[in-house]
Amino acid sequence: MAVQSLFYSDRDGLEMALKTPDSMLFTTKADADARDKMLELSENIQLWLEKKIPAMPEEYAEQCALLIAENKDLFQKALKKPEVLSEQADTDSE
Amino acid sequence: MAVQSLFYSDRDGLEMALKTPDSMLFTTKADADARDKMLELSENIQLWLEKKIPAMPEEYAEQCALLIAENKDLFQKALKKPEVLSEQADTDSE
Repeated sequence: MAVQSLFYSDRDGLEMALKTPDSMLFTTKADADARDKMLELSENIQLWLEKKIPAMPEEYAEQCALLIAENKDLFQKALKKPEVLSEQADTDSE
Repeated sequence: MAVQSLFYSDRDGLEMALKTPDSMLFTTKADADARDKMLELSENIQLWLEKKIPAMPEEYAEQCALLIAENKDLFQKALKKPEVLSEQADTDSE
């Protein structure tokens, strides 16, 4: 028997992390860091969208921002080659 | 007197370009190309958002996509350094 570590992001908070351990609770610090960075990006995008499109309801700004942050690498490619988004939209069943 | 050229993007269409010449009608092909590329990116982002967030009304997907495409360079930076978005949100009065 030995002590085990668990990691979560402050941005999710402990309560949320315990409720949704599959996506929010990690056995390595690196994985929790990756989620924290993703959430940081998502928060910044959301605030920017809300500022620039004041009429858009918060829920859509949040969903949009999270989607982009979760697909950061794809999105980065898309800014140079937009059609990668339609390829993913066609084939991906997420 | 001499013949002058004007350029617009098919994605806007002639009718729209004539109605909104300040942003859609150009005296150089390069400028019209830049707008065409921006609109191509915007269309791809919009379709992707609509596919991934089916509940989001089309108008918000369109506004979101256009905002991101119009601010492609900023967004590209933000994917690496999210806080550039909040700097812009704070200082920019657009």
